[in-house]
Amino acid sequence: MKINVLFSNLFLDELYFTGKTVVVIDVLRATTVITTALANGAREIIPVSTLDFAMKISGDAFRSQTLLCGERNTKMVEGFNLGNSPLEYRPEVVAGKSIIFYTTNGSKAIVKAKFSKNLFACSFNNLPAIARHMIQLNEDFEIICAGTNGLFNLEDAVCAGVLINQIKKLTENPELSDSANASLILSNSNTKNLFNFLCSTEHGRLLIENGFEDDILVCSKIGSTDVIPYYVSGTMKRL
Amino acid sequence: MKINVLFSNLFLDELYFTGKTVVVIDVLRATTVITTALANGAREIIPVSTLDFAMKISGDAFRSQTLLCGERNTKMVEGFNLGNSPLEYRPEVVAGKSIIFYTTNGSKAIVKAKFSKNLFACSFNNLPAIARHMIQLNEDFEIICAGTNGLFNLEDAVCAGVLINQIKKLTENPELSDSANASLILSNSNTKNLFNFLCSTEHGRLLIENGFEDDILVCSKIGSTDVIPYYVSGTMKRL
Repeated sequence: MKINVLFSNLFLDELYFTGKTVVVIDVLRATTVITTALANGAREIIPVSTLDFAMKISGDAFRSQTLLCGERNTKMVEGFNLGNSPLEYRPEVVAGKSIIFYTTNGSKAIVKAKFSKNLFACSFNNLPAIARHMIQLNEDFEIICAGTNGLFNLEDAVCAGVLINQIKKLTENPELSDSANASLILSNSNTKNLFNFLCSTEHGRLLIENGFEDDILVCSKIGSTDVIPYYVSGTMKRL
Repeated sequence: MKINVLFSNLFLDELYFTGKTVVVIDVLRATTVITTALANGAREIIPVSTLDFAMKISGDAFRSQTLLCGERNTKMVEGFNLGNSPLEYRPEVVAGKSIIFYTTNGSKAIVKAKFSKNLFACSFNNLPAIARHMIQLNEDFEIICAGTNGLFNLEDAVCAGVLINQIKKLTENPELSDSANASLILSNSNTKNLFNFLCSTEHGRLLIENGFEDDILVCSKIGSTDVIPYYVSGTMKRL
């Protein structure tokens, strides 16, 4: 099993992902939100890469069954039903709903990888479940760190490293690329107190400035759910 | 002083670098070669981003004073005078010459950053000199890791981390981005035996396969020269 990590995906063509198995990580907060929403009964998440497209598909006949959700620069977009805080995605709000989901980094990374053979969303919350599933699948795979504005961020790299570390414990010597090895090293030096670590990152500090410290606590809980979001025909559903 | 590290630059617009101070790193081997060539008396290095452009400007009236140099996929391009091995750039070969320089990653990264206010080339060889110069300059700067085919590689990230570490020893708490912090962590875990580390990276293994192990030894010598390659009007010269 070969594992590679992409710290940035903006310059890659969509066709790069054709036929590949891919895990997308956006710890703060898109993949945490997707996992939470599905765990709390949402029917599906429809990730979109532009606000225009989000507005366009939200105007259809099924409005009562869809929610328009996400953020731009950490804040809810005006006119949206929900922002990008996992705490908003409570069962009574999302159960049975289709969620159109636009975010600055995470939803775009998923859409970029839409031609993958298998595409999963990973956060710390469902990381152990993803690790076990990747062992079962036993295929080479790529981890996309959604990053921040197309650039490296530390929390997604560390999450990739923790995932690789768990996989290493369950299978014999996976073959790691330079970036996979780097993720592993970064995770070893940053996982003693995950909440404190997340608060110390650039994006963590920005979230705290904007009043989202409670979100970071949710995002730091390793293994709080076994839900695996899986991409099929334009939507993410529970595997 | 703020320091940021770019693990990839392919998706960035050239204008991103306008007015910035930038250090380009391509340890294996482009920035090592540029430093070596200037240390051994080359008049200038002319980095180019396409083979076509390399051929075009090499066909001028000054052929006896220019050398067409570089590599594609680690090997010398047919018809070129020199490849991308620092051992080829001996004083008797390069003294007084203008070197047109094309490589898969390094020369492209320099050309991408051509609108920078200040642009330096750093390798392990001249790293202490670059560190001292950045302290003197006392400006925010970005480090471009040329990487491998536009993607992260470990040796450039570790070199960035060693540079940041030396700067931290000489100045009070530079402000580090996530990627700068990550480089620092990576360098702390990989610098006990730099030669062995470079041999263990993906690109290092590829070079060894192609018979360039001696190059890696040259590339691993920290502080073997004080030459600082500086970009001005399309060429890199000694500062």
